[in-house]
Amino acid sequence: MYAIALHGGAGVISPDIPAAQKQNYVQSLRQALLVGVTLLREGRPSLDAVEAVVCCLENDPLFNAGRGAVLNRAGFHELEASIMHGNSMRCGAVGGITTVKNPISLARLVMEKSEHVYIAGEGAEDFATEVGVERVKNDYFTTQKRASQLVDAQKDNVVALDFFNAKQKEGILAGYQPSPHGTVGCVALDLKGELAAATSTGGLTNKRKGRVGDSPVIGAGTYATTEVAISATGKGEEFLRHSVGRTIAAVMEYRGDKLDSAVDHVLTQKLKPDDGGVIAVDRHGNICMDYNSRGMFRACADSNGKFEVAIWENNEVSQLQES
Amino acid sequence: MYAIALHGGAGVISPDIPAAQKQNYVQSLRQALLVGVTLLREGRPSLDAVEAVVCCLENDPLFNAGRGAVLNRAGFHELEASIMHGNSMRCGAVGGITTVKNPISLARLVMEKSEHVYIAGEGAEDFATEVGVERVKNDYFTTQKRASQLVDAQKDNVVALDFFNAKQKEGILAGYQPSPHGTVGCVALDLKGELAAATSTGGLTNKRKGRVGDSPVIGAGTYATTEVAISATGKGEEFLRHSVGRTIAAVMEYRGDKLDSAVDHVLTQKLKPDDGGVIAVDRHGNICMDYNSRGMFRACADSNGKFEVAIWENNEVSQLQES
Repeated sequence: MYAIALHGGAGVISPDIPAAQKQNYVQSLRQALLVGVTLLREGRPSLDAVEAVVCCLENDPLFNAGRGAVLNRAGFHELEASIMHGNSMRCGAVGGITTVKNPISLARLVMEKSEHVYIAGEGAEDFATEVGVERVKNDYFTTQKRASQLVDAQKDNVVALDFFNAKQKEGILAGYQPSPHGTVGCVALDLKGELAAATSTGGLTNKRKGRVGDSPVIGAGTYATTEVAISATGKGEEFLRHSVGRTIAAVMEYRGDKLDSAVDHVLTQKLKPDDGGVIAVDRHGNICMDYNSRGMFRACADSNGKFEVAIWENNEVSQLQES
Repeated sequence: MYAIALHGGAGVISPDIPAAQKQNYVQSLRQALLVGVTLLREGRPSLDAVEAVVCCLENDPLFNAGRGAVLNRAGFHELEASIMHGNSMRCGAVGGITTVKNPISLARLVMEKSEHVYIAGEGAEDFATEVGVERVKNDYFTTQKRASQLVDAQKDNVVALDFFNAKQKEGILAGYQPSPHGTVGCVALDLKGELAAATSTGGLTNKRKGRVGDSPVIGAGTYATTEVAISATGKGEEFLRHSVGRTIAAVMEYRGDKLDSAVDHVLTQKLKPDDGGVIAVDRHGNICMDYNSRGMFRACADSNGKFEVAIWENNEVSQLQES
């Protein structure tokens, strides 16, 4: 059997966004999911599937990864990504990326072609040149929406996190285009029973130059073992502090929890409300997509015919059966 | 009660190093330990003790952190460090540092004065300027020994890790000055019962520019909770892959292991022989300093009168009673 789940970020997603916009998100998530499902059905490795899905989402300007990524305080994009193959524990990560079109593919190349696990900044750009991946100018990643969000965030001179916390307190979030959501990720179980996870992000709007979140950190934003694969999204600082990926895997490994229970433990006992969410798949093909924020762009499918796309609670979900 | 442990790195440390050199290491470790013990006895927080001890070791040219750090493939120093306070789960980390005399102090300032957990590269240097820490030229960190090690490593055009693996296979390691050892770290329990951990390193000799190891990664090289504080040293890629810090804490938290058993699990079931070692202290004041390499520079003390400095196996240890 196969199973796959993806996310396009968690955060304060207003259910009042216009129907057309909602439909755009649903379509994008659906298309990315189909890319992964097609590969898995063909018997391709989970590692290929998660990379391909994350590339789709990086190329899609709707999400905060690759094109469409948020801007840092200095007004440019610094992207980060990581990927892990659970059965071999091999992994790769990149941070501070400014000109690589698909950071997730560079992370995979770090895993496969370097002697290291994690390469950052100029060194990662040099490595990109050596291995020959597609390059773009930094402004390729910029969209009008993200430019406006930076202006808004800088008006208040706070990072986006504080900005949204403040807005929430003021009760004026409705209708506001949130930016913490948007990190993308994918987890998959392939026909051979192998697991993989991948995560990619632009980080936080108005983040300090050089800020590293959880997405490039193996054990935090991304983790995979022979038992489970996890990709996280939300307030990176909190996910780093609690090593979210490793903690979920550890609760299963050392306490014997099932997948849903392990994810719930981390979302309710370690993280705080509104911190974000995770997607995970275990070696039995169980899928978990859970969050403690107001919504999470997500989708999943498996070889038993499951095919879902959702943004908010399950009872108000936009679900699509596979056509 | 208080308890404290520190390390100056694990690796292939030949017991054949000259007696005078051995004595230098022992003296340096002893002095650093005394700095920590003095602070803890005065009732100062464990966070202050681990920072002060790591600063000592960073300033000491014998160890691969701060002055005395190894050189990367491009011939300069990129330093990384992290610190964590277990009881609050607050943490800070820096990577790609080139001009900050004491990276561990900058990591603490990231924790205390930034809205982030981890800042890398130029952004971290900018942050250092904002908060006003002591700066040095990059060649302040260089010692003759490290320059020679880079030349040796580049002769074979491999990173140090491969270099040492090759030398081991060739059976010509005896007498060779190893470089994987040298990362420094400290863990402490203070009189209030609070735990903290800190780690600092120059990484691997001849590492690719931008390579990130486990030392700046919360959950890998450094971790602390209300139960345990951990600092690791060894082959960073392996420690990252297995989220060593978080895994040790998780084995205690979710399987109920005691400290020694949790550390042993990771060193024997997750890591491979020669990968390195860890120091850890739990909230009861138990100390563990264990490794699966040929030695680990280490020292520990507690309020019950323990005061030890060691390099190799306990039965061939250079132990000093507190004078």
